[in-house]
Amino acid sequence: MGKLVECVTNFSEGRRPEVIEAIVNEVKKVPGVRVLDVKADASHNRVVVTFVGEPASVKQAAFAACAKATQLIDMEQHHGEHPRIGATDVIPFIPVSDVTIEECVALANELGKEIGEKLGIPVYMYEAAAKKPERIKLPDVRKGQYEGLKTEIVKPERQPDYGPAQMHPTAGATVVGARQFLIAYNINLNTSDVTIAKKIATAIREAKGGYKYCRAMGIMIEERNMAQVTINMVNYEGTPLHRVFETVKSEAARYGVNVIGSEIVGLLPMQALIDTAAFYLRLEDFDRKQVMEENI
Amino acid sequence: MGKLVECVTNFSEGRRPEVIEAIVNEVKKVPGVRVLDVKADASHNRVVVTFVGEPASVKQAAFAACAKATQLIDMEQHHGEHPRIGATDVIPFIPVSDVTIEECVALANELGKEIGEKLGIPVYMYEAAAKKPERIKLPDVRKGQYEGLKTEIVKPERQPDYGPAQMHPTAGATVVGARQFLIAYNINLNTSDVTIAKKIATAIREAKGGYKYCRAMGIMIEERNMAQVTINMVNYEGTPLHRVFETVKSEAARYGVNVIGSEIVGLLPMQALIDTAAFYLRLEDFDRKQVMEENI
Repeated sequence: MGKLVECVTNFSEGRRPEVIEAIVNEVKKVPGVRVLDVKADASHNRVVVTFVGEPASVKQAAFAACAKATQLIDMEQHHGEHPRIGATDVIPFIPVSDVTIEECVALANELGKEIGEKLGIPVYMYEAAAKKPERIKLPDVRKGQYEGLKTEIVKPERQPDYGPAQMHPTAGATVVGARQFLIAYNINLNTSDVTIAKKIATAIREAKGGYKYCRAMGIMIEERNMAQVTINMVNYEGTPLHRVFETVKSEAARYGVNVIGSEIVGLLPMQALIDTAAFYLRLEDFDRKQVMEENI
Repeated sequence: MGKLVECVTNFSEGRRPEVIEAIVNEVKKVPGVRVLDVKADASHNRVVVTFVGEPASVKQAAFAACAKATQLIDMEQHHGEHPRIGATDVIPFIPVSDVTIEECVALANELGKEIGEKLGIPVYMYEAAAKKPERIKLPDVRKGQYEGLKTEIVKPERQPDYGPAQMHPTAGATVVGARQFLIAYNINLNTSDVTIAKKIATAIREAKGGYKYCRAMGIMIEERNMAQVTINMVNYEGTPLHRVFETVKSEAARYGVNVIGSEIVGLLPMQALIDTAAFYLRLEDFDRKQVMEENI
């Protein structure tokens, strides 16, 4: 298995199935690219198209989808509940296998430049690809949304990183970047006292002094009468699964509570499993090429 | 990723590179089959060719390689230190991914029948594919070797499972079967007292009352002045890695010794890593399709 990059594209269309299909088809057309998921939301009026493949092919697919969205979506007519600044709203590249975040940043810059030059759309680089610290976080880049950015884009602090310093007349602007794979991870406790889950969440999350790449909340799972720590692991290399799991176990013990299970919601890269096994089995010099399936 | 079967073929030729190459080429010719390893040994006068692929293709490759070995190897001229009964000595099928051992047994029977009928070679089924309990273990099937079997094959208890009840004039006989993936696994101790490693090995190995699918020895690693428990995990589903690791840890503690690391030697199926992570993270309802790389 070679280099693999994931791309989670967000388009401002969640209501017209024929438009969504046309965008998805542009992705499917590219050899070696596999569409993993298409999630449309009518009230948000937005669709998230997730695909994966070798870096150059994924970039090509992202550009083709963006070009199609530029033809078919008119932001002047767009209404929806989700914040957005353009027809192609956000394109992050995410390393999956044998690819660094730096390679994804380079890929994002190539795509941003191409969208700016060939489609005439202003492009803002965000997250790991941000060129200014105030553009790292997506909500900061999207401030004022499509309508607000139309007038603010001429201000020096809102100048795009690629493309013209004016909105595309129908497609608006686009955010492109690179970020780590996000693992949605829940840890279940043998208590119905949600305050314990909340205290544990506070202990592990960055905002309160916990792990840098850990977002967490304590919630109640009513159907199981069970408190749960629900976590977004935003960089599993920086803050690995096993460390968060062990900390939750130890914090829970302080209240006489046990961890009864954990859940991976959705997908995770194989490397996260390798890292977990390597920690617990204390593996010396394990190479991912030792996994049979890597040799196919 | 679809169904994957591994095949570890053994041929009675370790000295003539052109013969080995001709056999390996038969495997390489089959689309979708990947040769993982070719290990020739001149003193054993034997080569082990390991390949992997989708079940039907792997069977096709095994038959083609066997047919080529039948043409090129004359057992009447063969000498070597390793026990053997034929030009194509042993062919086991091994489940890797999304395949059961029962499917591998069925595949082995198809191949055994084909070798018997088309090549006129007597075939004995062994391990999970054995048709008689006394044929499960390879050394029992190979008893007397090529020279001994030539006269004994007419006896009722040595009748082959497929093909004629007489040796092929040059290719002898062949053993075909199915077995689980073998994981070579070492656990390192922070002691130079090899007797502790030997005691732990005794505790975990089947022969002495330990785990059914665990073969183990205590040895000394001189370059690290370190005792090691060296293990063959012959069925990682029946006896999983984590259970052996935890038992070694607990037995070592009884002597005041710690496990300082472990090593996977060679390859292992991804499922063994998933099982390890699932145990330690107490995962609920994890499906291997949740591994990104499984979706490519």
